[in-house]
Amino acid sequence: MKVAILGFGTVGQGVYEMLQKARDLEPGPVLVRPGKADADYKVTDISAITGAPSVGAVVEVLGGIEPARTWVEQALQAGKHVVTANKALVAQCGPELAAVAREKGVALLFSAACGGGVPFLHNLALSTRSDDILSVGGILNGTTNYMLDAMQSRGADYAEVLKDAQQLGYAEADPTADVSGLDALRKIMLACAVAFEKLPCEGLYNEGIESLTADDVRHFRGMGYTCRLVAKGGPVGDTVFAFVEPTLVPASAAECAVKDNYNLARYEAKCAGDIVLIGQGAGRYPTASAVLRDLSDVIAGQRVMMPQACVRVTADCSGCGHPYYVRLPEAFAGKLPCDKVAVDNGIARVITKALTVKEMHDTAAALRTRGAQVFFAGIEE
Amino acid sequence: MKVAILGFGTVGQGVYEMLQKARDLEPGPVLVRPGKADADYKVTDISAITGAPSVGAVVEVLGGIEPARTWVEQALQAGKHVVTANKALVAQCGPELAAVAREKGVALLFSAACGGGVPFLHNLALSTRSDDILSVGGILNGTTNYMLDAMQSRGADYAEVLKDAQQLGYAEADPTADVSGLDALRKIMLACAVAFEKLPCEGLYNEGIESLTADDVRHFRGMGYTCRLVAKGGPVGDTVFAFVEPTLVPASAAECAVKDNYNLARYEAKCAGDIVLIGQGAGRYPTASAVLRDLSDVIAGQRVMMPQACVRVTADCSGCGHPYYVRLPEAFAGKLPCDKVAVDNGIARVITKALTVKEMHDTAAALRTRGAQVFFAGIEE
Repeated sequence: MKVAILGFGTVGQGVYEMLQKARDLEPGPVLVRPGKADADYKVTDISAITGAPSVGAVVEVLGGIEPARTWVEQALQAGKHVVTANKALVAQCGPELAAVAREKGVALLFSAACGGGVPFLHNLALSTRSDDILSVGGILNGTTNYMLDAMQSRGADYAEVLKDAQQLGYAEADPTADVSGLDALRKIMLACAVAFEKLPCEGLYNEGIESLTADDVRHFRGMGYTCRLVAKGGPVGDTVFAFVEPTLVPASAAECAVKDNYNLARYEAKCAGDIVLIGQGAGRYPTASAVLRDLSDVIAGQRVMMPQACVRVTADCSGCGHPYYVRLPEAFAGKLPCDKVAVDNGIARVITKALTVKEMHDTAAALRTRGAQVFFAGIEE
Repeated sequence: MKVAILGFGTVGQGVYEMLQKARDLEPGPVLVRPGKADADYKVTDISAITGAPSVGAVVEVLGGIEPARTWVEQALQAGKHVVTANKALVAQCGPELAAVAREKGVALLFSAACGGGVPFLHNLALSTRSDDILSVGGILNGTTNYMLDAMQSRGADYAEVLKDAQQLGYAEADPTADVSGLDALRKIMLACAVAFEKLPCEGLYNEGIESLTADDVRHFRGMGYTCRLVAKGGPVGDTVFAFVEPTLVPASAAECAVKDNYNLARYEAKCAGDIVLIGQGAGRYPTASAVLRDLSDVIAGQRVMMPQACVRVTADCSGCGHPYYVRLPEAFAGKLPCDKVAVDNGIARVITKALTVKEMHDTAAALRTRGAQVFFAGIEE
């Protein structure tokens, strides 16, 4: 099968290279920006791809919503299978694009959009056919895991590890989407859509790691915990819960073994039990390898990753909860139902009683509007 | 697709139950022993399955070589897809059965034969289509992992944890295949066949945990290590290496997070990097879930797990090596190239210089023929 590529950045180049060696696959035209077509196989007009009968599948690695959405839809309409690594696109337009793919009898797969090289959505989708998924989650952002791992192992401060992450190419010049938890949130939205046929679009909570300090990390270590940025989702009534927050995990958890910029994805299925998958969540070749596995899956006959019945829902995070570690000014500590409080130099470090995710995130937001510096992390029981 | 089942033990019953709820699948006739057909759907003659046009696929969960081999071949010849959980069968007859499946254009998948509910062979096979696999391995036997985990966490002795494992149904009355490493060895043989197109049949080494004592475990803990029974395989020249041995892993390794009777499978691919998969390696529903995933994969169009080019080879374990922990009578300690030796009460505990797997296993075998009590474990670097 000849495979065209939309976009020729880091991942696009990796896909092109892997296509040259893959079984039953070969590289086709690559769409680049006007003026950048410096080789025979590079084209600048999408119609050179959608109109080419020899092209069987299109890989989209442009990122962003437009023009990716328009071109993916045109490719599907033209009867081409589409494999995309674009989480923003699938989170926003997944159900509609999947409907076009279904109508045209072609595939729309997006493993690389969640977990990079970790074979998460592929296995999740396969399991849904015969098993009930009870929960999904994990460490879905490699940039912040690199930063947290470095802070934990070297005792370094936030600003220092962010700079390191940028120099290593793990973090972008504007790291907001990573460090705020938004990137991980988009990924857990996709996992919920695949696992529960519900794409949560509102009522979601994401707390990042921007306010974490080396002092906090020292406290976690003293408590025997490791801090990871964890995403979680699960069914609740007619909807799902889905959130991202810093999480303190005990030394025995698989999450602690996730070093550097690796990802960990997990799901619990009624029959299969707990399944944990660890691998590289980003980078040229790991992400390209997820794209290539999807393409091999297309050749084997696989078509559907976004379930036909998938609907958009407002998430409900008012039913799931756990204790939290909260660091905040002493004056505000009374706002929380405390189990333990330690105060030092006007700073309170609180272990709360069990709070719902909604309660904790809403309380932190309210305190911040009053000028309080707050960091919080869920505690894994 | 209607699915017949050969064998109605623990796993067969789980498969039957899951088939009743799975998408696009339904249970068909179940083959039981003569005199055991106490319900309409139970049959005692294989021809009631191979001759039934409505049966699209056959699940084989009998175990052992015969009559499983004959019946699987008859099912394939009759144009039925086959999914099996039988590692002994695939390790012994896999290439020939795969040839029959290929000739008839039907599937032969065997995910459940290696790693139980862990989606190992499925992902490995998918990765081989576009990536080069560099190594395979992991904790592939849940019984011994339960025992090692209990010895490590409770300080219990071997006999005690074996009894516990038997009472919990994790270990059979005759636990030899598990505790000797033979079960894990068969699984790594299958992984080598899928990953490297080479099924190693001779030149293999397996060391089990029968000679492990609570004293050894105390020493590992003092050294900061956890003991796991680890299988490894990889390409070497025109063949592969493949072995099973107790292995001391550092606290940071994902293997340490594998508790109770769980399994961990890992592979390294050139582009995807390290992929680690953790889940339940045995039990009714986890194993049945692997069978059901294979059946869903058959419906999607997947046919091949054992590569067409797969050949039988003699393994070569003379090129891979590492240091070992060896406990043996003081009088024999001079037989090993030692880095460190501690002697207590006539018992020497040695950390060796790097030895090849062949050297260490052969040396231990030679010492045992001279009556020496020896335990050894590879040390993960």
